[in-house]
Order: sequence, then C-alpha cells, then structure tokens
Amino acid sequence: MAKEIERKFLVRSDGWRSAVETKSVLRQGYIASMDDRSVRVRTLDGKKARLTIKIGRSAITRDEFEYDIPVADAEELLQNASGIVIEKTRYRVPHEGFVWEVDVFAGEHRGLVIAEVEMSSETDSPGLPSWLGREVTGDVRYSNQALATEYEHDRHGLSNTA
Amino acid sequence: MAKEIERKFLVRSDGWRSAVETKSVLRQGYIASMDDRSVRVRTLDGKKARLTIKIGRSAITRDEFEYDIPVADAEELLQNASGIVIEKTRYRVPHEGFVWEVDVFAGEHRGLVIAEVEMSSETDSPGLPSWLGREVTGDVRYSNQALATEYEHDRHGLSNTA
Repeated sequence: MAKEIERKFLVRSDGWRSAVETKSVLRQGYIASMDDRSVRVRTLDGKKARLTIKIGRSAITRDEFEYDIPVADAEELLQNASGIVIEKTRYRVPHEGFVWEVDVFAGEHRGLVIAEVEMSSETDSPGLPSWLGREVTGDVRYSNQALATEYEHDRHGLSNTA
Repeated sequence: MAKEIERKFLVRSDGWRSAVETKSVLRQGYIASMDDRSVRVRTLDGKKARLTIKIGRSAITRDEFEYDIPVADAEELLQNASGIVIEKTRYRVPHEGFVWEVDVFAGEHRGLVIAEVEMSSETDSPGLPSWLGREVTGDVRYSNQALATEYEHDRHGLSNTA
C-alpha cells in the first residue's frame, strides 16, 4: 500500500514539449467506482497492465494498492468498464527536481491536457513550471474517475483554458 | 480469466463431516459491490490472500479474475470493506467425482451452512449428497455479496432449514 499525494493543473501552453523525457500510451477504465473508492484497470503501451485500488476521501492523499495483471485480463476487464475507456498519452517532464506527468487526452476528452506532480509529503512544494494553467487539485470534475464516468457532463463543462 | 459455474445448496445434516478432506479458514469482504460486478478480498488461513473480480449477471456463470496479493494489503483492504467481513470455515468434501465446498459461517451469520459444487460446464450433473437441503443457486440472498452487504436483512430472513 502506498500513499498517493499529488497536485494537478491545467496546461496552458506547449512549453513542456521541449523537456519531455519519456512517453507512454495509457488506456484505462473503472471496474468499479464509488464515492470513496475506485478499482481501475490500465494498460501501458499495450504491453503492461495494472489494477489499482484507491480508497479514501482526501483530494490530495489516498490509499493506493497496485497489482500487475496480465494484459489479456486487462483488455477483457476494459470491455466491462463502467463508464468510458480513457485514452491518453502521458509525458514525463522533469522540472526542478520533480517529475511532472503531462496527460494529453484522446477520444472523448480530446483537447484536454492535464499536468500532475507526485510529492512525497503534503508539505513538499514543487516549483511550478510556466506552462501550467489553473490548479485543479481536488476539483472532482478533473479526477480520472469523473472523466471516465461523467463524460457527458465533462464534454460540455470542462475547459482547458487557464 | 475463468468462468465460474456452480450450484449452491443449504445443508440439512452433519453427514458431510465424515468425508472432509481439507479445511481452511476464510475471511472475506467486498471492496466494491455493484449489481453486475464485485471486487472481493479474501485471506486463507491468514497466510495467503487473493483479490477476485467477478463480472456478469448470470446466477450460474460469471467471469472471474483472480490475483494473489500480499496478506498485509488484504488486511488493510478488509478494514475498508463495504459491508461486513465474513468469516467462515470451508471444508472440501469429495462426492462421486466432484468436490463440494461446505462453508460453515461464523460471526454475523453463525448457524448458516452452505454447500457449493463447481462444475466445468453448465450441463455437468454432479450427484447430490444426501446431506444437502434446498437448492439456493441464483437465490441472491445467499450470494457472498448479499451476505456481506445485506446482513441486517439476512439476520432475520435467512434460514438454514431445508
């Protein structure tokens, strides 16, 4: 079990592209999704797959349990996702000692770009790159869970503008 | 992924006890439980633990995905179970080429005894031991899911009488 501590922002420019270190294509969906917990399946580049259980109500910290599973299982589970299967390319972008993950969405959420930084404690204070837009930490509309299950709403309500 | 095909009965006598092959103590709870799917955590004799995802509406056949997980994770997940943690001793009882699992419940459901047989196809026809009571295959009140999440109801409504 690990604690997940993160901050999340919209992205207002392409300034991050020149600093990209690696990228991978993620497909993910929820097997179950309740208000204080979720069970997610994700494939990485179609080669690895992972099951993730998150429990807890805090926007910044949640208990997280992760298990590698066979890719074939993941594909089958994704066919039974509750809500939509999200497709996005995740770019790792180092900045002042922290690694930012910039998610460029495809499919239903094409046009949306979100940056996240994982911290080791809630008091960590990562330097904020100039390409960040508005902070959306704790804004449930931008949680993976909401993006997967409330897409009708999001399609009209979400904006990538800072 | 495996298909789970089973029949389930109440147990009306102790006749099975003389044929017991092995037993193990199970503790299990649901991380998530929706009408057509469930995510269950189970510990076996406190030494092994398993995460099981079941998907599908059929009473007899459901898709089942099982993964071994660390016992410490399981204990923590059980503390976050939705509903109660079920405790039961499972006895394996061979009978005419099939293995019956007789579950003797403790805790909330003390007094309840259920026998299940797993089949390799829906057309298998296992011989029915004389100690079986009424068949409850498809009776949702006797599903592990209902026993874990609707115990208030069950405490008053369920009977082990055939």
